[in-house]
Amino acid sequence: MTLQLITKVYGLLEPGPVVLVTTAHEGRANIMTMSWHTMMEFEPPIVGCVISNRDYTFGILKQTKECVSNIPTAELAATVVDCGNTSGRDFDKFEVFQLTPAAASLVKTPLIDECYANLECKVVDARMVAKYNFFILEVQKAWFAPSTKRPRTIHHQGKGMFMVAGRTIKLPTKVK
Amino acid sequence: MTLQLITKVYGLLEPGPVVLVTTAHEGRANIMTMSWHTMMEFEPPIVGCVISNRDYTFGILKQTKECVSNIPTAELAATVVDCGNTSGRDFDKFEVFQLTPAAASLVKTPLIDECYANLECKVVDARMVAKYNFFILEVQKAWFAPSTKRPRTIHHQGKGMFMVAGRTIKLPTKVK
Repeated sequence: MTLQLITKVYGLLEPGPVVLVTTAHEGRANIMTMSWHTMMEFEPPIVGCVISNRDYTFGILKQTKECVSNIPTAELAATVVDCGNTSGRDFDKFEVFQLTPAAASLVKTPLIDECYANLECKVVDARMVAKYNFFILEVQKAWFAPSTKRPRTIHHQGKGMFMVAGRTIKLPTKVK
Repeated sequence: MTLQLITKVYGLLEPGPVVLVTTAHEGRANIMTMSWHTMMEFEPPIVGCVISNRDYTFGILKQTKECVSNIPTAELAATVVDCGNTSGRDFDKFEVFQLTPAAASLVKTPLIDECYANLECKVVDARMVAKYNFFILEVQKAWFAPSTKRPRTIHHQGKGMFMVAGRTIKLPTKVK
């Protein structure tokens, strides 16, 4: 994995991929599937995301105030669904789904090595958590696999349907 | 256009498409291109989105507290970029870009008829606007073109690159 320029983080998240959120507490790591997130600022990169208070991750994130947003590609689709269908309360998803934890740089939460990009995040604003389960994160460090030129990210459409990223087109925008 | 079940709104926005936000004030409608948005609740459908205070839309949305989120497909890609490269301060984008305004049902803002889905929205929480330009909207009514079976939505990757929605896969999720 290679360091990604922090100014390029928006390009990873803005297309709306499903992500795998990792958290860790007292030596125990967890993974959840999530796609309710949005960029909120370019630099530093601020990301908002909804993590339900019914999810095991909710309590850990509230307490530790850090997580990693790992972006999978279509090769991991079955695992993404498995992580979404199960709870970390019941078992260790890294072990059961055979994912490889890798050490992060600025947070104690492991990255998922099989994902093509990993964003180390800290909670910077929790004011909207009580009402909307909405966490505001700042991306501290970003990693990506430079070998993945055209990541086939997956995008949730509901009821088990996922869109796989298609072709890329270039258009003459003046904005970022 | 046909009414869309309000419980299905998340399936339109969750994959992360670029949207065209329409607003209107004193008989003058405007359009802006936007892709920093996320679902926040299923029912009623709550959507959070970032609209910069540098954008013409910002002031109108703050004042009128209503907008429409129109979802374009790849056929409109050039127009999406044109709307993003220009400001409603300067001219009427409906006229210049030859888009057709259609009457909404519960808001005074026009829908864009060429888009495959239209979500009539009202601002329900503006507490995060001052700090993050983050508006929380409730979708009041949703319309979609039933003829568009597999909408080729477009997804911004930054610097003029857009991913066009690819194939759809079905996986056995237990969640919505």
